[in-house]
Amino acid sequence: MIVILKKNAQPQQVELFDAWLHNMGLETHKSIGANHTIIGLVGDTSRVDMESILALDIVEAVRRIQEPYKNANRKFHEEDTVITLSNGAKIGGGHFMVMAGPCSVETEEQIISVARSVKAAGATVLRGGAFKPRTSPYAFQGLQGEGIKLLLEAKAETGLPIVTEIMDAKHLPLFEDVDIIQVGARNMQNFELLRELGRTDKTILLKRGLANTIKELLMSAEYICAGGNEKIILCERGIRTYETATRNTLDLSAVPVLHEITHLPVVIDPSHATGNSAYVPSMAVAAAACGADGIMIEVHNDPMHALCDGAQSLTPAQFDTLAKKIFAVREVAMS
Amino acid sequence: MIVILKKNAQPQQVELFDAWLHNMGLETHKSIGANHTIIGLVGDTSRVDMESILALDIVEAVRRIQEPYKNANRKFHEEDTVITLSNGAKIGGGHFMVMAGPCSVETEEQIISVARSVKAAGATVLRGGAFKPRTSPYAFQGLQGEGIKLLLEAKAETGLPIVTEIMDAKHLPLFEDVDIIQVGARNMQNFELLRELGRTDKTILLKRGLANTIKELLMSAEYICAGGNEKIILCERGIRTYETATRNTLDLSAVPVLHEITHLPVVIDPSHATGNSAYVPSMAVAAAACGADGIMIEVHNDPMHALCDGAQSLTPAQFDTLAKKIFAVREVAMS
Amino acid sequence: MIVILKKNAQPQQVELFDAWLHNMGLETHKSIGANHTIIGLVGDTSRVDMESILALDIVEAVRRIQEPYKNANRKFHEEDTVITLSNGAKIGGGHFMVMAGPCSVETEEQIISVARSVKAAGATVLRGGAFKPRTSPYAFQGLQGEGIKLLLEAKAETGLPIVTEIMDAKHLPLFEDVDIIQVGARNMQNFELLRELGRTDKTILLKRGLANTIKELLMSAEYICAGGNEKIILCERGIRTYETATRNTLDLSAVPVLHEITHLPVVIDPSHATGNSAYVPSMAVAAAACGADGIMIEVHNDPMHALCDGAQSLTPAQFDTLAKKIFAVREVAMS
Amino acid sequence: MIVILKKNAQPQQVELFDAWLHNMGLETHKSIGANHTIIGLVGDTSRVDMESILALDIVEAVRRIQEPYKNANRKFHEEDTVITLSNGAKIGGGHFMVMAGPCSVETEEQIISVARSVKAAGATVLRGGAFKPRTSPYAFQGLQGEGIKLLLEAKAETGLPIVTEIMDAKHLPLFEDVDIIQVGARNMQNFELLRELGRTDKTILLKRGLANTIKELLMSAEYICAGGNEKIILCERGIRTYETATRNTLDLSAVPVLHEITHLPVVIDPSHATGNSAYVPSMAVAAAACGADGIMIEVHNDPMHALCDGAQSLTPAQFDTLAKKIFAVREVAMS
Repeated sequence: MIVILKKNAQPQQVELFDAWLHNMGLETHKSIGANHTIIGLVGDTSRVDMESILALDIVEAVRRIQEPYKNANRKFHEEDTVITLSNGAKIGGGHFMVMAGPCSVETEEQIISVARSVKAAGATVLRGGAFKPRTSPYAFQGLQGEGIKLLLEAKAETGLPIVTEIMDAKHLPLFEDVDIIQVGARNMQNFELLRELGRTDKTILLKRGLANTIKELLMSAEYICAGGNEKIILCERGIRTYETATRNTLDLSAVPVLHEITHLPVVIDPSHATGNSAYVPSMAVAAAACGADGIMIEVHNDPMHALCDGAQSLTPAQFDTLAKKIFAVREVAMS
Repeated sequence: MIVILKKNAQPQQVELFDAWLHNMGLETHKSIGANHTIIGLVGDTSRVDMESILALDIVEAVRRIQEPYKNANRKFHEEDTVITLSNGAKIGGGHFMVMAGPCSVETEEQIISVARSVKAAGATVLRGGAFKPRTSPYAFQGLQGEGIKLLLEAKAETGLPIVTEIMDAKHLPLFEDVDIIQVGARNMQNFELLRELGRTDKTILLKRGLANTIKELLMSAEYICAGGNEKIILCERGIRTYETATRNTLDLSAVPVLHEITHLPVVIDPSHATGNSAYVPSMAVAAAACGADGIMIEVHNDPMHALCDGAQSLTPAQFDTLAKKIFAVREVAMS
Repeated sequence: MIVILKKNAQPQQVELFDAWLHNMGLETHKSIGANHTIIGLVGDTSRVDMESILALDIVEAVRRIQEPYKNANRKFHEEDTVITLSNGAKIGGGHFMVMAGPCSVETEEQIISVARSVKAAGATVLRGGAFKPRTSPYAFQGLQGEGIKLLLEAKAETGLPIVTEIMDAKHLPLFEDVDIIQVGARNMQNFELLRELGRTDKTILLKRGLANTIKELLMSAEYICAGGNEKIILCERGIRTYETATRNTLDLSAVPVLHEITHLPVVIDPSHATGNSAYVPSMAVAAAACGADGIMIEVHNDPMHALCDGAQSLTPAQFDTLAKKIFAVREVAMS
Repeated sequence: MIVILKKNAQPQQVELFDAWLHNMGLETHKSIGANHTIIGLVGDTSRVDMESILALDIVEAVRRIQEPYKNANRKFHEEDTVITLSNGAKIGGGHFMVMAGPCSVETEEQIISVARSVKAAGATVLRGGAFKPRTSPYAFQGLQGEGIKLLLEAKAETGLPIVTEIMDAKHLPLFEDVDIIQVGARNMQNFELLRELGRTDKTILLKRGLANTIKELLMSAEYICAGGNEKIILCERGIRTYETATRNTLDLSAVPVLHEITHLPVVIDPSHATGNSAYVPSMAVAAAACGADGIMIEVHNDPMHALCDGAQSLTPAQFDTLAKKIFAVREVAMS
């Protein structure tokens, strides 16, 4: 961290500030220029509140030069993280994973039928919502515990590992046999939940919040890492902008940015980002082309009657066509 | 809800759609124009997924004409909600409330000293953070249960009711003697938490999320109302935009907008919105001038050494000056 | 356009409103429901100000059901627009175009050398800035007229048509031999300029403004069309969001959205969107994969010494590698 | 400007970089720490492209410590700029100015009638649009030259100076007798226009663009200053965010921010920001309370029939009531 002092900073003020910094366990390194005095801080600056320093009378500017995330930082962990699931499917380090399934689990028949379809098309993970975060308290909230049971039946039937969303740490016992626990966009900064997940040994799919920066996404991953669990898959699913032609704006450049600064695998969810099944195929193919480590797509056997988010689901036939294209494009793009 | 059909919609498709709507318990009302057929839906449309309908081949557009929130809607509850606290202080319906105190509770001495200062300046509620949601897992996370104890001591000492943030429903027992439970911006859509708070009889201060619309704020209030608790204070604390000169962008026009569509009181938090104590006084005065029902301000006896968010805190002396101006401006503005 | 009246609208008010609408040359079509009266407006509603109607006491809501753009609307022009340049290169309707070159034209040697490189790599249009819109009046503003001369020399040398930006209609005479005139993001709503370009027979590359919606982009295209010039290429180059990891956020989903609602070709500019040459290749490949009709990429023979935007330029060698991948991915994606 | 080098930067690379900087006329000042080498640049860094430097292999980060605007910078010009108009009305340095009038000039009767009303209510400047930037080419574009004539008649009749928008520098001759030339939000970065206005001796009202930062607003002011014209009034009129309850989001905190960093006066336009006359009064009063140097409000004698933006106009009677409150609140707030 670098602190730039104002031109007119009085020596005794500077000394006081220096003492305060040492008191926080930091070494300082001063460099006096014609116009500015610059203080470099050495030590663990991750606890230092930049805004408090900036509020000091003598301070002109404060700049962080080290990222505040450590475990998730590629600088300290050069190799890509590779995560392997129960069926042997891998993600990260060159391995590509397709997750597919309905927004909500509805019936045994539905989930098993979709699971079979997506497996046949090449998906290696089954997604399905049991606990559904809905903007309205009057909307369908998911089958909850019952939904997880149905997912496990589909897993037993097809061998596909399952990913499903958790909304509160108190439901963790229900997730014992779930392969990947999803943290939804609205809970990306539910720090109590992240902390609890850090204490499990489950793979976590962490979705970026609608208004969260890429750095904040990594800080939330850091909450999980800090508890000892580094099996984290990051997911970009659209951010909130002024544009209303799509539900959210898919920030696909998050893929190369994240690959540069973290070793964790990155998945794209074009279904929630666009909110419109007509735009899902082109965005899914684009995600494969730009190097995403995985794609998560909503597939429903009867999108017209889906209890939620039907508008963004593909039919199994559409998904089958899309999956072929995804694999073909990825092969060329990664060659 | 109104559905506009495409010009080329086939009669049998329209019939099918009509049957599907009736099946959902809705009556339909058709109006056939030269260019478009319009179907008006009558009944409880709060469960209808607009996007699913929009996805149908024959549908050109779907428009909601009723707001999806009911309990919080002024149309169904014309009178302003007035909330009265233990010390007789009221908010809403013309009553104005000033909440002040430190970002974090640090020590007994600190919180009691600040409580006395803000009370003397005219504040009627003491704010103070015990559980702190921090972006970084390495930052100070608050004194937690101990912090609440210190707040209760300050309350006993000064008679000021207290407001403090909850981060997880499992901590509810610690909040038994807390007067106002705050739901932070990051938890505005933590629906499990909102549901639990709906079952309590506490006053809830619900902060708008950084990327949430005013309608979503009301939908989150609706989650609390749906459980039977209508003692809700809404709080605007800045939204995330591309501008970086302030921490967030204070959306002050939320005050007249909310006053038009809901009966719930509205509080402004200029400290978190701007993130800079230099900008707090002008925004606090502006909030009073535009009719906010309350203001929430960070005050710290030693902002330079505050464990968090020192940059945005006022000193007790600054707050005293500001409070005088706030009251004076409000009197003129509301006359 | 549909107007939904309030429940309590008085008959004489409704009559007055009806008369006012007829006066504007519109026919009305009333449909009286149990809860709402709906008035459908028939006629040319493109001049009707929705907000004025919404301001009326008796009006609950107003909804447009027809898009306000006509010439650019696919509904009225189903076939893709195909534009052919002097060298026979085409864009639109399945034809793909790669435009490449330096941000700024600097010297004859530079522009001819880059032109040769990008042509060899497969580009069919040379881009280069002569007039440069710079945020700071103290920054390099481009070689202006001299820059256009150098571009024309490069065109004579290589046969590549050229695209370069115009900043003011008064410079139009200098653009006589330019093949594609670019309207930059900051001028997307410079309506006087658009109007003048509508009177020319040049191909126009219209860049989306940093904070403009897709609909506004089409309305600006409409300004050009209205003058009789329909040779318009739309360009997505990133929108402004809260995320700072990239210069802007590339809204790649604009490609399928635009393809659905307009017949005009769509080009992606990943160089300006990301502002970082490290992210350009993955975004360029993604653009090709999702069906963009063209890609525009900055290439500089010496990015380190580029007079502007060097950070986002590729070297000719990097571009050569990228172009191969772009063509290969597009072939698979479009098959 | 400070450049932080990577840990592994090779000495010969650093030397090369150093030479390059000297070549640009900059002195460098090196400070070698345990973890980082920091290079401070001394000299005119306003021409240095930060992104190009950041693109260098050996560079970890680049930070600007001096603002890139000079003439508009309060650091180099401590005193508030005060602008005096033909009728003696002043703005800045404690002087407050109310500008009012219709969105568009429509008829002689209309503009004179509104001018008299707003003058009686305390406005000291008449606003009125002659050239109207409209999103749609099919919407009313203003009376143009004829509109300016009508404004000048109203000025002759009432003595009120006038402010009206320019859309292209070629219309400048028509603005000879206009007191304040407005640059609209869409033209804030029309640099050719700004440059021309810098050569005039007119007072310029520069509106912030919908997606422009406060710093960019100052850079655009800098374009005008650079030509020798420092009579600039800045205007905040709402920025584009994801919130749709108001047309734009009024960023009122721009007032204290601008007052801190520039000496130029700041005006708030609540009419365009909210787009809804119901929200204008509370936002106008808030603007007065927070220290804005002026307010610009749309007033129309018959908002229902206004040719544009009727929804946001006040009636003369509403404006009269509002003006009284504005002056009263300002008096208390500034005391």
